[in-house]
Amino acid sequence: MKIGVLGTGTVGRAIASKLAELGHAVLVGTRDPAATLSRTDPDMYGNPPLKVWREKHPKVELGTFAQAAAHGELVVNATAGGVSIEALEAAGETNLAGKIVVDLANPLDFSRGMPPSLSVCNTDSLGEQIQRAFPRSKVVKTLNTMNAHLMVGPGQLADGAHTVFVSGNDAAAKGTVTKLLESFGWKDIVDLGDITTARGTEMMLPIWVRVFGATKSPMFSFKLVR
Amino acid sequence: MKIGVLGTGTVGRAIASKLAELGHAVLVGTRDPAATLSRTDPDMYGNPPLKVWREKHPKVELGTFAQAAAHGELVVNATAGGVSIEALEAAGETNLAGKIVVDLANPLDFSRGMPPSLSVCNTDSLGEQIQRAFPRSKVVKTLNTMNAHLMVGPGQLADGAHTVFVSGNDAAAKGTVTKLLESFGWKDIVDLGDITTARGTEMMLPIWVRVFGATKSPMFSFKLVR
Repeated sequence: MKIGVLGTGTVGRAIASKLAELGHAVLVGTRDPAATLSRTDPDMYGNPPLKVWREKHPKVELGTFAQAAAHGELVVNATAGGVSIEALEAAGETNLAGKIVVDLANPLDFSRGMPPSLSVCNTDSLGEQIQRAFPRSKVVKTLNTMNAHLMVGPGQLADGAHTVFVSGNDAAAKGTVTKLLESFGWKDIVDLGDITTARGTEMMLPIWVRVFGATKSPMFSFKLVR
Repeated sequence: MKIGVLGTGTVGRAIASKLAELGHAVLVGTRDPAATLSRTDPDMYGNPPLKVWREKHPKVELGTFAQAAAHGELVVNATAGGVSIEALEAAGETNLAGKIVVDLANPLDFSRGMPPSLSVCNTDSLGEQIQRAFPRSKVVKTLNTMNAHLMVGPGQLADGAHTVFVSGNDAAAKGTVTKLLESFGWKDIVDLGDITTARGTEMMLPIWVRVFGATKSPMFSFKLVR
């Protein structure tokens, strides 16, 4: 499938490289590709410059947000939650219309210090905000409750015996995303319901950051036991 | 141990009967014991009247919130989150001073309809509100991420292979509560840190209600896989 990935951070790179490895035609979008490629220092999380990463992933194309959205039959939002709406607007409503938008972002608010709180929660969610802003797209929220390595390699933990949730209004779109998740190795995929259920998964961020604080490792996940 | 339980609803009854079964001296407190005992209809959740329940649990004593708090060396808040502060005030700050207050409540807000949202979250929590209102007590938040049957009988699901979280400022108090949890059958008990980490577990309520909506059964829980 032709897939556009918005965002070149940890999550965008993990998703893009996995999708390319699985044979998809991936174009990663960033605000200003030339500026991003000109950087020579690691980013704030210690990731190597994108230029270095690209040399290891030559099949992944790079372009603007709009080019990535135009390229993709399916578009993944892997930007930081605080700038997701802006990035999707730069991608272009018309480029996203009629397409599945897989939203991986969490609306983290670092303005109050660490650990982050959420900039939207409880009676709304980022997933819903995106669906309202792009009514012609089919937003599917998923993979936002574990770190980027586990998103694309669930088998690295407990042989994959943990859970990923899916939220969205369009059953066919959730079906397509479920197949993608299965191709990543996910075995326990729980459809929570419509996009309002994204409140549930986004509000797991506070327990995620507290568990990270308590265990000092990001290699954990939640299994829905039933 | 002498234990006071505030609240005679589903959670209060489950906790009180389990504690009595384990040999603790339990006094359950309610606002108006005479009025509660005079009821002959099931409550809004279909629970039998307290009078009927008491006949099956003759060892559990009944009194006011203040009597339960005065009785307990440890006091359990099993009231609904929306009235917890009020119930604890009725129990009496002096009666609670120096004691462990085990807070099981979630600040559910039904005013916007179903499923409920939270009346406090993100930058505060009910656990923190209680700790601030009762600074001489040692508040430990726990057991608020699964239903009442699983709280006191975790082995009913997956042989107990799921997780309970503990939050609180006092390490010794958390140690005492951890022993109580072990006596209930809990095997995976995760100390998240201070009482601010109650934000994490209280904010799991939205995913809990959405999973309940999707699976139509309350007999599920979350396992922290790491």
